[in-house]
Amino acid sequence: MRPLLHPSIDDIRPEAVLHALSDPERAAIFAGIAGAGCVEKCSAFASFGERVIPKSSLSQHFKILRDAGLIRSERHGVEMRNTSRCGEVDERFPGLILAILTAYAQATGQDVNIAETG
Amino acid sequence: MRPLLHPSIDDIRPEAVLHALSDPERAAIFAGIAGAGCVEKCSAFASFGERVIPKSSLSQHFKILRDAGLIRSERHGVEMRNTSRCGEVDERFPGLILAILTAYAQATGQDVNIAETG
Repeated sequence: MRPLLHPSIDDIRPEAVLHALSDPERAAIFAGIAGAGCVEKCSAFASFGERVIPKSSLSQHFKILRDAGLIRSERHGVEMRNTSRCGEVDERFPGLILAILTAYAQATGQDVNIAETG
Repeated sequence: MRPLLHPSIDDIRPEAVLHALSDPERAAIFAGIAGAGCVEKCSAFASFGERVIPKSSLSQHFKILRDAGLIRSERHGVEMRNTSRCGEVDERFPGLILAILTAYAQATGQDVNIAETG
């Protein structure tokens, strides 16, 4: 099993964060993790509105979020648990994540909610 | 000659803005336009640090910025003139552009500068 790699906070690049969140489905998954503030299992995101997300796409979304430094993933048996790195990213790039999630929330007419974590 | 299309402010999508600015070269071009606050000709961006940007790449960058709603382009004879739509985008998605340009500036150790325009 391949190890899960997480960039150190100093290696997080704005372009990777923007790329990761430039997909609305991936941004919604990340908003879910950031808003939950507790450990989220991959399976909690198996649907996006009415649409079911195939497992392979879901893994790919999590990998891109992880590589960008936005989430931390841990294997627990057959499960993958993900937590947000909002707190760390916000220290490095103040206001970036909130502005992005707020823009999406505004475009879809929803509220934004980021829990106090990581 | 094809007409230049600009999305109306209500049609600007967060994913398009993030995609447009997820390329550091394109983000730097946009930062130049946003910071200048006056009309910038395409040719003013023919280099990026030490690297010369080919004309075809430059046209592509401007098209992506324009399609995302970040700039307005006007043909003047053989020249293309570009202005920032920061003001409009900021009304729709408050703080988004500033947070993104600040993140890039922070990552590259530069100051961010957005002029009061459009």
